[in-house]
Amino acid sequence: MKLLRYGETGTEKPGLLDQDGRIRDLSGEVADITGATLDEATLARLRALDPADLPLVEGNPRLGPCVGNIGKFLCIGLNYSDHAAETGSEIPEYPILFLKANSAICGPNDTVSLPRESRHADWEVELGVVIGKAGKYLSEAEALDHVAGYCIVNDVSERRFQSKLNGQWTKGKSCDTFGPVGPWLVTRDEIADPQKLGLTSDVNGRRMQDGNTGNMIFSVARIISHLSELMTLHPGDLIATGTPSGVGMAQKPSRVFLRAGDEMVMRIEGLGEQRQSVAQDG
Amino acid sequence: MKLLRYGETGTEKPGLLDQDGRIRDLSGEVADITGATLDEATLARLRALDPADLPLVEGNPRLGPCVGNIGKFLCIGLNYSDHAAETGSEIPEYPILFLKANSAICGPNDTVSLPRESRHADWEVELGVVIGKAGKYLSEAEALDHVAGYCIVNDVSERRFQSKLNGQWTKGKSCDTFGPVGPWLVTRDEIADPQKLGLTSDVNGRRMQDGNTGNMIFSVARIISHLSELMTLHPGDLIATGTPSGVGMAQKPSRVFLRAGDEMVMRIEGLGEQRQSVAQDG
Repeated sequence: MKLLRYGETGTEKPGLLDQDGRIRDLSGEVADITGATLDEATLARLRALDPADLPLVEGNPRLGPCVGNIGKFLCIGLNYSDHAAETGSEIPEYPILFLKANSAICGPNDTVSLPRESRHADWEVELGVVIGKAGKYLSEAEALDHVAGYCIVNDVSERRFQSKLNGQWTKGKSCDTFGPVGPWLVTRDEIADPQKLGLTSDVNGRRMQDGNTGNMIFSVARIISHLSELMTLHPGDLIATGTPSGVGMAQKPSRVFLRAGDEMVMRIEGLGEQRQSVAQDG
Repeated sequence: MKLLRYGETGTEKPGLLDQDGRIRDLSGEVADITGATLDEATLARLRALDPADLPLVEGNPRLGPCVGNIGKFLCIGLNYSDHAAETGSEIPEYPILFLKANSAICGPNDTVSLPRESRHADWEVELGVVIGKAGKYLSEAEALDHVAGYCIVNDVSERRFQSKLNGQWTKGKSCDTFGPVGPWLVTRDEIADPQKLGLTSDVNGRRMQDGNTGNMIFSVARIISHLSELMTLHPGDLIATGTPSGVGMAQKPSRVFLRAGDEMVMRIEGLGEQRQSVAQDG
């Protein structure tokens, strides 16, 4: 099942994607797609519906982030061995964690608008994991039972803000529109193995990243288990699990950074694609 | 005006503190104290009420965090010259920023429960700044116009999680109950100068921190201006502005860390006090 939210920012309605790729409205079934509606009982109820019985949404509405009211936006850094190598970083002993501000979250195809002073913005395609059931002190064996589903995240990152402003990484990760999430939340039952998904990013038509979640240093289950030793994971929390090699700051012979007018396309096997135009704040 | 939220976790009601220190119920006036009710018009309307006309709340109810539905919990690190010195850190060129997970937020007098593996938990009394009006690219001169009010924050910190788990600081800052906020939100009009407030922390009756916000490296106005260059500040966002010297990890001759059974008291001039018992997850 592919759950989504459509409509203008702040007033999105819940929907699902039918087998023909059309949006069906879920407003009569749930108030929204949030942590409050990602429990197994609600998901089972929605799964039992015949999409053909739901109202067809006409036209091409904007898609919002596929989960609303995200609780915390947890991000794992340097989680692919190839990406750690390209940045000259050591393989971490534990998953590196930082948080992205929730105000960075936007729809999968919204314009990414760089802050005025940004000259070093970069792309990062990542597998997003959405929690469906609260948990603390979870073993790796039980971790995936707490996942509602998966989605694409572009962990847009301003490298100078990230490393030169004394700000921990957060400063370069939390700018407005630096967190496109979606297009849809693909429920866990449709993803046989989250560690076998190809993921790519293209910028202006050029393939920049071409990785596989099999190259994660810490698996989704290991990440969930580790984070749950530190804090409760709540329904509606989102974990971005790191990016493979091919980011702009590691390009040879010269680094490549985002500029107004650029186009990004992020894809993950089974999870659809995101397309963002790049602009810059005036 | 001192705004607060009282009742059990998750079902707090809005209230205000009257001149006799009693809680008056605001449920008939606003749904809750959140970013949605911190605009100047709503605050002016509440200020115009005669507290004696509001229902008196009997007994001693639990206090929740004084602002509900906090958007982002922004924290400034090493912002007092005395604290930077005691930790052997250089004075930063820009405000150091990290985020605390929203799931760490709790009431001002709730029990702080250390994670199972925690052996190095520490206290940090901090001036909290709550945003009342959205803003981006704010000058220092206009920054304080965007503040709804001030409150106490205890930025509870697990030093080993913070520095030894490859996690940026976030891992040691985001544990459940590591963010007591309150007791009340004191509206901006009652704080003539946020850079002239004494702040202290006591642990088991011993004075550990005794500082003044006048010793901040970056003022509240400078912090707001800087953060707003990176991201929009929204109503209901909370900024913890750093802690003065006297944290446990800097005690001589030996470091002191929190253990189950300890008692913390945090005070800031004009903002009341917090009292937390310390426990540990079983």
